[in-house]
Parts: sequence; structure tokens; C-alpha cells
Amino acid sequence: MSDQRVVRPTPISGFPEWTPQVRAVEQRWLDHIRAGFESFGFASVETPSVENLDVLMAKGETSQEVYTLHRLQDDAEDDSDAKLGLHFDLTVPFARYVAQHFNELTFPFKRYQMQRVWRGERPQEGRFREFTQCDIDVINVDSVPLHFDAELPRIVHRVLAPLAIPAWTLNLNNRKVLQGFYEGLGVKEPIAVIRAVDKLHKIGDDGVREILLSEGLDREQADACLRLARIKSTGTDVADRVRELGVTSELLDEGLEELTFVLEDLADVPNVVADLSIARGLDYYTGTVYEASFDDDPGYGSICAGGRYENLAGQFIRRKLPGVGISIGLTRIFAKLVAEDRIEEGPKCPTDVMVVVPSAERRAEALRTGEALRARGFNTEVFHSTSKVGKQIQYASKKGIPFVWFPPFDDEGIHEVKDMVAGEQGPADPASWTPEG
Amino acid sequence: MSDQRVVRPTPISGFPEWTPQVRAVEQRWLDHIRAGFESFGFASVETPSVENLDVLMAKGETSQEVYTLHRLQDDAEDDSDAKLGLHFDLTVPFARYVAQHFNELTFPFKRYQMQRVWRGERPQEGRFREFTQCDIDVINVDSVPLHFDAELPRIVHRVLAPLAIPAWTLNLNNRKVLQGFYEGLGVKEPIAVIRAVDKLHKIGDDGVREILLSEGLDREQADACLRLARIKSTGTDVADRVRELGVTSELLDEGLEELTFVLEDLADVPNVVADLSIARGLDYYTGTVYEASFDDDPGYGSICAGGRYENLAGQFIRRKLPGVGISIGLTRIFAKLVAEDRIEEGPKCPTDVMVVVPSAERRAEALRTGEALRARGFNTEVFHSTSKVGKQIQYASKKGIPFVWFPPFDDEGIHEVKDMVAGEQGPADPASWTPEG
Repeated sequence: MSDQRVVRPTPISGFPEWTPQVRAVEQRWLDHIRAGFESFGFASVETPSVENLDVLMAKGETSQEVYTLHRLQDDAEDDSDAKLGLHFDLTVPFARYVAQHFNELTFPFKRYQMQRVWRGERPQEGRFREFTQCDIDVINVDSVPLHFDAELPRIVHRVLAPLAIPAWTLNLNNRKVLQGFYEGLGVKEPIAVIRAVDKLHKIGDDGVREILLSEGLDREQADACLRLARIKSTGTDVADRVRELGVTSELLDEGLEELTFVLEDLADVPNVVADLSIARGLDYYTGTVYEASFDDDPGYGSICAGGRYENLAGQFIRRKLPGVGISIGLTRIFAKLVAEDRIEEGPKCPTDVMVVVPSAERRAEALRTGEALRARGFNTEVFHSTSKVGKQIQYASKKGIPFVWFPPFDDEGIHEVKDMVAGEQGPADPASWTPEG
Repeated sequence: MSDQRVVRPTPISGFPEWTPQVRAVEQRWLDHIRAGFESFGFASVETPSVENLDVLMAKGETSQEVYTLHRLQDDAEDDSDAKLGLHFDLTVPFARYVAQHFNELTFPFKRYQMQRVWRGERPQEGRFREFTQCDIDVINVDSVPLHFDAELPRIVHRVLAPLAIPAWTLNLNNRKVLQGFYEGLGVKEPIAVIRAVDKLHKIGDDGVREILLSEGLDREQADACLRLARIKSTGTDVADRVRELGVTSELLDEGLEELTFVLEDLADVPNVVADLSIARGLDYYTGTVYEASFDDDPGYGSICAGGRYENLAGQFIRRKLPGVGISIGLTRIFAKLVAEDRIEEGPKCPTDVMVVVPSAERRAEALRTGEALRARGFNTEVFHSTSKVGKQIQYASKKGIPFVWFPPFDDEGIHEVKDMVAGEQGPADPASWTPEG
């Protein structure tokens, strides 16, 4: 080895990686979330990690976040993968999936999707370049009942409640309220205002006002936009408080009606707040928008997000295919708890029982014992060599394996098992033993 | 929508994607494989999708297969992700993981890893640019007992046996046999010969002979290499048959001893064949090598592969960290069965019971009924609107939902459930109902 260059491995910023003990917990969380989504009837979908760039860009997502793929050795004859980018969320790929497989699906199509996504961001706290999202979405032909806008956050609440995560709040808004209000104010480019208001928590009132003025709004219009953004309510008086601002438009009425409906439907779900500063930066939302954050650290960023998109899937095949969805930012939640040492680590390995190998001659019997225990549902490893028994027990102890099994050491011997926690050892039958004794 | 450009979605060659019914089966396979790996005590590890290029290239893998990442909008100030490539297998990332987390792990470290990998290949049958591999590996400090070389294919056999896949054979060889034989022949560059012999099934005897002659071997040496490659045996007479060729070296003896040990240990596992033409193209293998293929379509390519690598993990931190591993090419197996229509499709959705919503006034009760059934472990969806009951039942029927639940339609009413397959309907209590009646 002395003539080889040593490539010291270092963590890659923005790409999280866990020890086996932490990974065991992440896997348990993923299983729990999956079972929760399935318990509400959502079907699993996975899409490739890449999409064609024109699909990724179909709704004008800020292009700097996308990673494109290149082959290390370019092949001039074959550029079939030249226009591929890693997906930056799971909503755009799902909308493309529904359009592409339109004739194979039954509508309304309810799917969950739990995959990694990638963003070419500069790493900072809570921001990752690769992270796992857990999404549920519904897409239907022509229209999606507004009940779904309430059902999705309800499901997320049910799914996250049993996990040991800190208190969080779901902030709710409706793009039609924002856009309708701005239209009622006489603003020409409501989308530009939405983008500016979306930065409120980062740059504050003055920062947003400055952008709005530069976008051509007058002082009064800008102040009205900021007054709207300051409305927050856990009750259903939101519509009244918006109307007190004296702005009217048809779209605003429609938005307030939808927002009130969703709020009322969610009345039994704790920590749901109408927050009229929530806009969501992505262009594809058209109605309800969601954004959840930790109560004790709202600046950490959103841990769930989503909303309603009327025109995302349909654009690919010129049909009306509206949808609504919400995404759990699993890595963002999980990584924070890991960093703050708030995760109770899992075991080093999934082994329930380690079978001792008394000698080379007795290895076949040890292997049979392992098979018998495995067939009864116990995760079982047979020790990998014929080291001294003390060394074999030491290995089990270091790995935290709860039970060590001793097959007969000679033809007259019997099976025994040792409880590594209690320290007790006694006779046992591989065909009937249970950890309870 | 009329003013928007339509981006028609098309499948991306080499990046497989399944309908929900096929995905349901893939998910079941993945769960089954995971449980199988855990039943032998292997711990879950996941690594980022990317590695630094110098890690990926540490053992000289052919560079054309690697996809590198680029941000769509280059940021001259920040090149922290300029040297990242998507991993092309899970062995190199795992070796890097062990070296990097050396002080946090307990050895021998046994892990499984089930993730997507990427290769910038030209797509052809059975070749994918993105595919899922399911790997198990053991890495230890200083040495790995040879028992593991036999245990890993045994585990793969146990795990794949219950899945409905066509008959397959595990081909076994040992790099030391090849290298030792070539050295005994007086060949200067045994690795070049290994690379040439690895192409035997693609280019035949004449093609390999041509390469060997061009590498400086004489006719006699080249023929001896080809005679070795023709040896195939299901018994343990392999060593004798190799020795009959009259070539000797210390390394050859060592290799034959190892190969015989592994073959004997695997005597009870069906369809294991010593095939001395198996070399595995990757440079990092140093002893045992595995390659499995379908019996009725060996040209389709390997469906499992792996081997022993003495110097892969250790190179990163200048320690001796040998390993052995095997990988199930899940996507390659699964995609072939899907293409040949040999997969029995799963359900369109995981829903067990759909609860009818009789009217807007009775929706709250329907939701409560859904909660009660869900709490008892039934995947339950409550219909998403108050359409006519006939339309609600039609939705359940189209989705293949096995049971439709009717909560009371008025205050005097009772709960009823309809078995959609048997067509029978009768009274039922959400607190005690079971599908068996």
C-alpha cells in the first residue's frame, strides 16, 4: 500500500450521512410515515432521479438550484443524456408522471412519494444539497374537491404526531387571497408582489417595501400589502380582518371562501394558523398554500410545505389536471434533531440472537440453530469464526446483541441461551424459545 | 393554457419508472430483501448519492461510466460541488464510509445498503443508467474470515428463493487463481489478462486470444489462459483440473485452497458453479469473485455480482481493512420480469376499506368511522366528496378496493359493509369488524 496515494475521505458539505445507530431511527421513521400514508389509501410512486430540463423548467423554477448531469468522458456521438437534471422536488416529477401515464391511472389519483431530491444550494444550517422528502398529492381530472386541501395537512399531523419532534405549527394561506387583494389594489404584476412578500421573514417590512416600490407600487399600495401580510389568526375571523382593509375583488372573495373552508375543516387539528404572509416562492401554486415550521425555531425554515397547483400536470398534455399536495421535509426535521442530540439512537445492528460456534466440527450445528431461530422470526447471526467463546461473547456485547445462544458443545450437551442485559443463562429449545423466557 | 408551450413528457431511456401496480410489487420485494438481510444481522447504511471524484476514481474504475454534477447556473465564487460524481456502485461508497467512520464502528462491520446507482452508459437491454442495487458487505480490521465468502451468496440465495424469479446460477471464481496461474505462466501484466478474459463471453476465444497476443503473450501462454477459462465445475475437483494444466505458483495454490473452501462450504446451496472464466472487470477485487446470471438467458448480464477486496477501504486511511460483498441487481432482475409480463401486478392502491359519505351533514361521522377502522389497522379512505352513492361505489370498484363501508344514513341507521368481490352486504361494527366476517 505504501506506493499508493492516500485519498482521505471527508464529509461532503450539504450531503448528510448517518451512523448505523442513527440510520436505524431514520429507517423506522420512514417506515412509520409510509404506513401512515398507506393507511389513508395513498399509493406508492417513485420517479427517476432525473427529469428532462424542459420539464423541470416548465414552470420557471429558479434555475440555479438544479444540478445537471454530465458524463466524465464526453461521448460526442451520444448526447441522449445531455439535457437531464436531478429533480429539485417531487411535485414537478409527479405532475409529469400523471400526464405521461394518464391513460394507465384511475382518478382522483392519490399517491405518496418518498425520495431524495437535490438542490445546488450553498450549504447553510438546515439547508441540504441532497435530502429526502415525503410527499402526498392528489391529482384529478377537471377539479379536486376542496376537502383534500384540509385532508392533506390532517394526514401529516396524524403521521408526525407519534414521532418525537418538537412542537410545530402549520401556516396556511391562499394564493387567490394574495393575488385577489393585489388586483383589488390595482397592482399590475401580482406575482412580483407575491415573490417580494415571500421574503418578509428574511428581509423584514422595510426590505419588502423597498422591492414593492421598485416594482412600481406606490407607498399606499405597498403599505396595504404589508398590512395584509401581518394578518395571522387561529380562528375563522380571517375573512373579516382582510375585508376590514377595504380592498375588494372577485378573486379575493373566492380565496377567502376557500381559506375559510379549509380552516373550518381543520378546526379539530391543533396548531393550524392562517398566516397571510405565507406565499411559497414556487410559481406553480394557485390556491391553498402550506408552510410549517418549528415553534421554537421558526427561522430554521419550513419543515413541511405544499399547496394547490391547478395547471402543473395539465400543461404537459393540454388537459385540466389540478392537484394539491404537501411535503414533509424529513431530512430537514431529522438532521436538526440529530445535530441537537435529541434522537434516541437505535441499535448498532438488528441482531436479536448471536449463536456461538463452539468448534469447527460443531459449526454445521450452529448454522442449523441459526436457521431454526431465523425461521421463527428472530434476526440471528452465527459467529463468523471459531474464536474462543469469550471473544465471541465479547463481540455480541460490543454490538449490543441482546441474546447469545450456546448450541451443544458435545453430543451430550444441551442448548442454552444467555440474556446479555439480565446476565442470566439457562437451557432453551430453538424450536420454542421466546425472549420472554 | 393556450398561450403555453406544451412540453410533452416522454420516458427517458435507461431510467425505469413503474405504474403504481408494478411499484407495489417492487416495494414488496425491497421489504422482503431488507428483512432477509436483517435476519442475518446486517445493519442498514445509506450514503450520499455522490462521492468526491477522487474517491470514485481511487481504484481506477473506467471513468466513462461516471455522471458528474454541474449547477445549471455556475457560481464562480463557490466551486464546493465541482468535483462530485454520482456513485456507480455501493461498494466504493461503503469502503469510503468505513474508513471515514472508522472510530464509530464495531468490527467486523456487516452492513446492507439498498440504493440507486448511476452509470453513464448507452442504454441497451438489461442496462440502465439509474438502477437499484441491494448489497451486503463485511469489512473487518486486518482480516475477514473466509466463512463470509460463503455466507454472503448463501444469504442471497435464501433471500431470492421465495421471489418468483427464473432459475439462476451463481458462478464463482477467485482472482488469486487467475493471477497466480498467469504469474506461473510467466505473464508480466496479469491484470491485463484478467481484463481480456473478462470479455470472453462477449468476444469469444479468438477475440480474447487476439488481445492476449497484443499484450505480449506468446501463443502457448494465450492458449493456456483460455484452457483455464474453460474450466467449469459444480464439484470440488476444480483444483485438480487446474493443476492438470501443469502451471504452478504460490498464489495459485492459495487461490485454489480458498476457492475449494468456499465451494465446499456452499455444497448445500443449489446452482453454485466454479467458473474460471469469471473475472469481474472492476480492479478492486483480490480473491473470491461472484457473478450470477439467469439460466435461460445468460447473455442478459449478471443479476448478482461481488467479491473480496483486500485494499479498497484501507487505502483511504492506510490501515488493513479487507472486505467481501455481494450485490443483487434488483432493477435488472425486476425490469426483465416486468418487460416479459412475468410479474403479477399488485393493487392500484393500498386501501382496504372505502367509507361512503352519505351527505355533507354526515361527513363528520364518516371521518370518525375512517379513524376507527384505521386505528384497527385497516388502510381506509373516506370518499372525497358527497357525490351520489353509486358514483362513490364505482370509484371503489375502479380502484379495486375490496370493501365499501356504509355509515348510518340517518340517526336510526346502522353501519353496513359490502364485500366488493363476493358482492355481499351486511351489518358491521367498526369496532369489531374483520374481513373474514
